[in-house]
Order: sequence, then C-alpha cells, then structure tokens
Amino acid sequence: MDGDSFQQWKNQCLNKCDFSKKGSVDEDISHVVSFINSQDRYFTTSSCSGRIILFDAVSDCPDVQKQNCSWLFVTHQKCQMEDVVRNHIVRGLEKSVGDATFKFEPFVLHVQCKQLEDAQLLHTVAINSGFRNSGITVGKKGKIIMAVRSTHCLEVPLSHRSHVLVTHQYLDFLVGVANQKMEENLKRIQRFSECLQAALQPQEEKCSFKEADNKTVYRRRRKRTQDVSVTDSSQNTQEHHENTEEEIDCDLLFLL
Amino acid sequence: MDGDSFQQWKNQCLNKCDFSKKGSVDEDISHVVSFINSQDRYFTTSSCSGRIILFDAVSDCPDVQKQNCSWLFVTHQKCQMEDVVRNHIVRGLEKSVGDATFKFEPFVLHVQCKQLEDAQLLHTVAINSGFRNSGITVGKKGKIIMAVRSTHCLEVPLSHRSHVLVTHQYLDFLVGVANQKMEENLKRIQRFSECLQAALQPQEEKCSFKEADNKTVYRRRRKRTQDVSVTDSSQNTQEHHENTEEEIDCDLLFLL
Repeated sequence: MDGDSFQQWKNQCLNKCDFSKKGSVDEDISHVVSFINSQDRYFTTSSCSGRIILFDAVSDCPDVQKQNCSWLFVTHQKCQMEDVVRNHIVRGLEKSVGDATFKFEPFVLHVQCKQLEDAQLLHTVAINSGFRNSGITVGKKGKIIMAVRSTHCLEVPLSHRSHVLVTHQYLDFLVGVANQKMEENLKRIQRFSECLQAALQPQEEKCSFKEADNKTVYRRRRKRTQDVSVTDSSQNTQEHHENTEEEIDCDLLFLL
Repeated sequence: MDGDSFQQWKNQCLNKCDFSKKGSVDEDISHVVSFINSQDRYFTTSSCSGRIILFDAVSDCPDVQKQNCSWLFVTHQKCQMEDVVRNHIVRGLEKSVGDATFKFEPFVLHVQCKQLEDAQLLHTVAINSGFRNSGITVGKKGKIIMAVRSTHCLEVPLSHRSHVLVTHQYLDFLVGVANQKMEENLKRIQRFSECLQAALQPQEEKCSFKEADNKTVYRRRRKRTQDVSVTDSSQNTQEHHENTEEEIDCDLLFLL
C-alpha cells in the first residue's frame, strides 16, 4: 500500500467519532495505543485492556449468536476489594432470568499496518510477550490487520433458568482466579509495551538494546514440564501443537 | 517460496514420525486434514478436533507456565452418556491434589501455505465458517502458517487444594454445556470442510457453485442483536470490536 493511501486511511480512522460511551480507550493500555498511533506505519482500530464480566443469556438456546445477552456486571480493573465484587456478582445473579455466565476476557488489540513486514514485526513482539493467539489478516484491498490475542480464558456458567448453581464460597474463589488472570494479563501488556518500544526505537538505540537484552527477551523460548498421568493421544496433540508454536517462535525470534 | 522448496518441506513434514501415541489425527477431522494435504499449495502441521479435559495444577501458583499440570480426564467426542462422563469427572476430582479445572477446547488446525494468497483464501474460509480468531503467521524464512482458531471457550475451576467446590448437580449442567459447545464445534468443522472444498475445486466447477451459493455462504454477514442493560464503555468496545471484525469480513468475502 502506498504511503498516501495509508496516511489517509489512518487520518480517517483516528478522526472519526469514538462510538464508546466512555469515548476513550481503557486506562491500562492508553500509553500503548498512543505509542502505536504515533508511528507512521501503524494505527489501532480497536482495543480492550481486559475485563471481568457477568452476562445473562436465554436458556437452552443452542445458537450462540441468538442468545440475546444482557450484561449484569463488568469491570476493567483488577478487583481490589474482592468481597465488594462478590456482592456485585451476587446482586447480578439475582437479576438473572436465564443462564448467567462469569467470564474473564484478556487484552485484545487490532492494529492496521502499512506493509506486511510491519505486521510481522508487531506479531513477533506480541508472541514474545505471551500473546500466543495473535495473527495477521490480509484483506482483498490490501488492508493488513495484526490482532494481538491471548490464550487466556475463564468462562464459568453460574446459573440456569435463573436458578443459581454455585455457592458464595465458590464465587469468592472465582473472583480470586479472575484477579490472578487479570494480574498476569497486565504483566503481559507491560512486556508487550516494553518490547514494542525497543523494537520500534531508532536503529542506533536498538543496537545497544539488542546487545544488552537479546538473551533475556528475544532468545527466551517457552519450555514447559508436564507431568502427564492420563494416557491419551490428545496430550501428544497438545505437545505437537506446542512444538509447532515453538518452531514458529524460532523463525520469528530474530526478525527484529 | 519456490515450488520445489515447499514440496520438500511438505514431504519432510508429512513423512516424519507422528509423535502422538495415537499415531493419527482425530477422527472428526481426518477428512479435512486429508483433503488439505492432497492440495499442492498446503499441508497441515498440527491439529486437534476439539476436546473436553479435566486437569490438575499446583495450587496458588501465579505462573501459568509453572503449574506442572496433570490430566485427570480427556475426551475428543461429544459425551453421549452424560452420567457416565459425570462419574469419570467425579473420580478424576477425587484424585486431584491441587486445583482441578474443567475445560472445553475447540478445533484448532495449523496449515503451512505455499504463498500468502493461499493463506488468505484459507483464512477467508475459516472466518466465514465461524473460526473468528484465525490468523496468519509469516516467519523470517518465508514459512507461512494459517492457524484456524475459534472464539469458543469454557474454563471452569472445580477444586482448590484438592477440596471440591461444586455440586454433582453443577457437574451435570457443566457436561451439558460442554456438549452443546462440542456440537457447535462439529457444525463449524463441517461448514469449514464444505467451504474449503468449494473454494479449492477446479475453476469451472467453482463458477456454478458461486452462482448457486454466493448468497448463502459468502455474502452472509454476522449481525447480532444485543440487549445491553449495564452502562459501561466495554460494551461499546465490544461493539466497536465486532464492527471491526465485520469490516474485515467485508474485505475478505469476495476473495474466492
């Protein structure tokens, strides 16, 4: 894509009205979004720092897209006072008329990139920061989007036909688990932010960075020890899967 | 990448030992994997049809990668006899010495592609079949991988420090929810398989297919109605996110 078209696209996107009621990006990622948008070769098209939500859906509806969800509780922050949050969730569950589900959704970011190699660089940074489900989309008209996505997940059904199926003790534990995931999510965002700045800084600064840090960040490879006690092919599918992702990492590690 | 290098890579990959104990791909996707590997421009590097698992991890360990998981139960099929499965899970939980978690993991497939446009075509098929977290990876040495990934998720903590936190009634409900997700997963695999065959069939056949079906499959756009009852910016972030993905769809819809 030529420079003028990309810049026009960028201006159009960044100047258009933010349709969110908040009217701005989430606090925990505003520095990342600003930094990306300050670069000539990138601009962000959507983002969410991560959130904990409780939503209600129509019971016994097999079609996910027709469940007509309503939201009972949502926060983008780590829950500082877990008992207060637990009470919010309990009150939310009292309003449930269908199947209520508790969910943690991690950081997600979509970035439009000028050239494919710009997307590759961003993808490398995302993978090495722990966002292993990241990927590139190339549209028919040349639009290149890099999506930063995590493998993090937590999705817990809590009620069925408005009948709550779990105890308060379980809700306390669940909020703690979601908090741990939110904390890990924030660490990864921080790592992504630091790696991104290092990768996009001017060439002369980058050299000194690489000398100092290439053994700590970019050469780091994920190794997991796994004590497997069930004999099933899926473990090996998983291992195979892991190996494949490691291979991808190897290819990408020295792109910067 | 030139044709010879790709073919060598493909031969090497497909002829090497399958490290899984099962020694073969999962039954529900063997036809998809075979079809892809019969094409000159593609070969699969890893796959899993989807599974329901129960695993045990070290309690109070904030580092996901150091949890040293052991697996207590796993199946790749929809649970035909839900009470039998529930009993398997109950027995699995009795063996838990840490934090046991129940999880549904959807279909995942990694395909190495000859050229970027081959990856784009596969990506279009994946997105239009419902695998909305799919994405392309381009390695430094020119290796192009298309990952088919779903947004489907279910991850439910069941015990803490070997103490079970939920009732048998809840486990019954959970197995039902996982079964619904497994069913939807299989429908999407079927849709992916059909779209893929249509997209990769010879040109003359494709024309007649397009005339007959282009209004039903490729022109279909996701529209969701959402009754939102909590005032929070995240809803709009989500809507914005949805819109962005729809835009991507629009770009990709007529690639075939």
